[in-house]
Amino acid sequence: MPSGGEATRAEVLSTLAKVLHARAVSTELADLSSQAASEASSFDEKRQVELVERDLERARKVPSRLVEETTRTCSLAQQAWSRAKKERDFKMFLPHLEAVVKLKREEGVLLAPAGGTAYDGLLSDYERGMDTADWTRLFDELEAELPAMVSEIVERQKSSNGRLDGIAGLKGPFPMHAQMEVCRKLATALGYDFTRGRLDLSAHPFSETVHAGDSRITTRIDETELTGSVYSTLHETGHALYEQGLPEDLSGTPLGGFCSMSVHESQSRLWENLVGRSDNFWQEQWPAVRDAFPAFSKVALEDWLAHSRRVARTFVRTESDEATYNLHVLVRFRLEKALILGDLQVAELPGAWNEAYLKMLGILPPHDALGCMQDVHWSAGMFGYFPTYTLGNLLSAQLYQAAAEAGATSDRPALLGWLRANIHSKARRFETPELIENATGEKTTAKHFLAHLRSRYLG
Amino acid sequence: MPSGGEATRAEVLSTLAKVLHARAVSTELADLSSQAASEASSFDEKRQVELVERDLERARKVPSRLVEETTRTCSLAQQAWSRAKKERDFKMFLPHLEAVVKLKREEGVLLAPAGGTAYDGLLSDYERGMDTADWTRLFDELEAELPAMVSEIVERQKSSNGRLDGIAGLKGPFPMHAQMEVCRKLATALGYDFTRGRLDLSAHPFSETVHAGDSRITTRIDETELTGSVYSTLHETGHALYEQGLPEDLSGTPLGGFCSMSVHESQSRLWENLVGRSDNFWQEQWPAVRDAFPAFSKVALEDWLAHSRRVARTFVRTESDEATYNLHVLVRFRLEKALILGDLQVAELPGAWNEAYLKMLGILPPHDALGCMQDVHWSAGMFGYFPTYTLGNLLSAQLYQAAAEAGATSDRPALLGWLRANIHSKARRFETPELIENATGEKTTAKHFLAHLRSRYLG
Repeated sequence: MPSGGEATRAEVLSTLAKVLHARAVSTELADLSSQAASEASSFDEKRQVELVERDLERARKVPSRLVEETTRTCSLAQQAWSRAKKERDFKMFLPHLEAVVKLKREEGVLLAPAGGTAYDGLLSDYERGMDTADWTRLFDELEAELPAMVSEIVERQKSSNGRLDGIAGLKGPFPMHAQMEVCRKLATALGYDFTRGRLDLSAHPFSETVHAGDSRITTRIDETELTGSVYSTLHETGHALYEQGLPEDLSGTPLGGFCSMSVHESQSRLWENLVGRSDNFWQEQWPAVRDAFPAFSKVALEDWLAHSRRVARTFVRTESDEATYNLHVLVRFRLEKALILGDLQVAELPGAWNEAYLKMLGILPPHDALGCMQDVHWSAGMFGYFPTYTLGNLLSAQLYQAAAEAGATSDRPALLGWLRANIHSKARRFETPELIENATGEKTTAKHFLAHLRSRYLG
Repeated sequence: MPSGGEATRAEVLSTLAKVLHARAVSTELADLSSQAASEASSFDEKRQVELVERDLERARKVPSRLVEETTRTCSLAQQAWSRAKKERDFKMFLPHLEAVVKLKREEGVLLAPAGGTAYDGLLSDYERGMDTADWTRLFDELEAELPAMVSEIVERQKSSNGRLDGIAGLKGPFPMHAQMEVCRKLATALGYDFTRGRLDLSAHPFSETVHAGDSRITTRIDETELTGSVYSTLHETGHALYEQGLPEDLSGTPLGGFCSMSVHESQSRLWENLVGRSDNFWQEQWPAVRDAFPAFSKVALEDWLAHSRRVARTFVRTESDEATYNLHVLVRFRLEKALILGDLQVAELPGAWNEAYLKMLGILPPHDALGCMQDVHWSAGMFGYFPTYTLGNLLSAQLYQAAAEAGATSDRPALLGWLRANIHSKARRFETPELIENATGEKTTAKHFLAHLRSRYLG
């Protein structure tokens, strides 16, 4: 956005937030919701009302003044973050982030369940049925195994990675048009329906449902590197497959949406990592991908597979591999919790971040743009969002394992069918823990994810 | 849009139209408007109320059922048009266009001023203060001179165009990145403020004000042809300069917008054609543009200027030159008027179109995709819109002439200053005829436009 529009953007967003909030707390909507509640008889009808009531109750807990101020402050903070990141200057960002943390803490207190903390309150905007203690257990479970496992993987990959660095064909060129064609073929191979979507180019990959029947995805292209476009396409396709699998007859209703951010992420990660870095997938897809790029004429399937499974301790979460990814999130979970609970001052964030990266990943970010300012989330007020990424990763392995036990991983249509039946078609009928237990017969656990890493990288 | 989303899109748009219409005809808004009217004292306050009242009155004239049905029908018709154009099959489009014409005729009758026709009613959505008779006079004035003038210009350019065809450098290559850089420089040269806008790439060039302080433009790139990106950039920059010049203190109010579609088009055409194809402009800009492309090393300024002023009888309005452009619009004006007034059946449109092109431009479209299906407007229900393009062209010359007489065309900042003072800063205070008469001391006329063509092409 051009700088001249920043103030207006903040005003526009805060006005919209205020209007929407006024609507949500209106007696008119409350009356309509009560009436619907008294008429609801089926499971689905009752759930529709429950989901509406939850949104209305959330709105009633937060005063209009706070809604407006938080929206405006976050809009300005996001713009300041963008500039500060470019300048690698945390001080430019500091007063903005302080303002955001203060407001989000206030909001968290208002949203907190009985006996819960401000951070519990914020978590409930992204994932329900899990409190800070549950998340802490999950991350502790990961910390007990993951750092050591990453060390072992990195050690084991040393010689093969040295060999991969010497293979010129892995560095392209990969012309943009050919990459887009390959990405379209791979999305189709996963089951993405192009009559109800599109794949386009953008600076940052994303998936977006415009409305029912139109769930789009984008990818990014670097002509010297193919894994970026391929894996972001597989990731976004996973998101879009979930959207394309939501029940049509519930479209546009509160019940018709996706279950949670975590479950959404489980779908993207399942296709990106569990399927998309597997031997089976590439044995099938490699010939067409290889033939699309002259640079690949002397690259063997084994080289490409090894290349797509490189594990490295790096600074940036969004570019990290499936083994180190959750260590990046772990750092964020602990720091954001500390910020919201007042155990960490915003001014101390860069130091605390660097210390945590040194401890968890053994690396020290050279500056804050590759450190605590790399992600947009905190500037946008999204405290409590990061942990859902990790839960999504854990669930991807847990779901894949359950599908495997049901004999549904032998081909991709069978796998998609299993996900359609057990996840997509359920829409918002259940909270994450219940949906997952129904689908897998187990409570949410990190063990399948850790077993998957062990099997793929240390097996 | 993917085909799977078409039905939902139509439902979404018709629902939005219905909700907006219900709001516009609500007694609550009527009461607020009455109250504002009773309190308005200054010219600006009275005009704010007048503009709101006009919208509310328009809404009251059309029943909700018609609003909803028209929106849905046009959404589906636009999608059918897109497919039919690709297939070059007017029959696929015919039932959709028949449905649109029927509904727009009904709407036109309801909107018609006292004693006016359905077409007058539809015209009033795009331009006020001019009825069918005024438009007819304007187009008759053009028809009396323009076809003969085009013949003379085409004849005169014959030998020079043959020479231009032999200049390899005019065919590029013009690499995308270098074109974008050149377009950004040219927009800046016109006075476009990049701190309050951006220039990006899109399939079809457009300008769009996101909100105050953020007026963006796009261009399209063909690496074998430079005039496409350059002139679409100058055109969209003209639109954006108008938006960037609207008074900030009225931003977001009914009065704070642009005067009319015609006046908007006058701004884009003034910079694109009056300035952007002039000797002065290119004497200044040519060195930088030439140096941006190795292909231009052997191209002289005179060649580029002649290339940018080629006049040709072609099939497609959006690709036509400033001399033939209004003949394309003339055809559309007469045909759409006949369709709405029932003087022409939709099934007869392709034949009538081809006959008119043969008469006005001496060419026969090879198929309907290059004929009556080339534009999106009618499928989208935009009957009455086309004439504003021509009025915009006429006004661009009339305004430029007035600025010249005021000594404001010696440099571009002076010209922009004159437009800021006489057009942009006026926002929506006056209707087009009054705004133009205030600015130029004359009523709206075609004579300056015709004089401009005569001077540039036959001088």
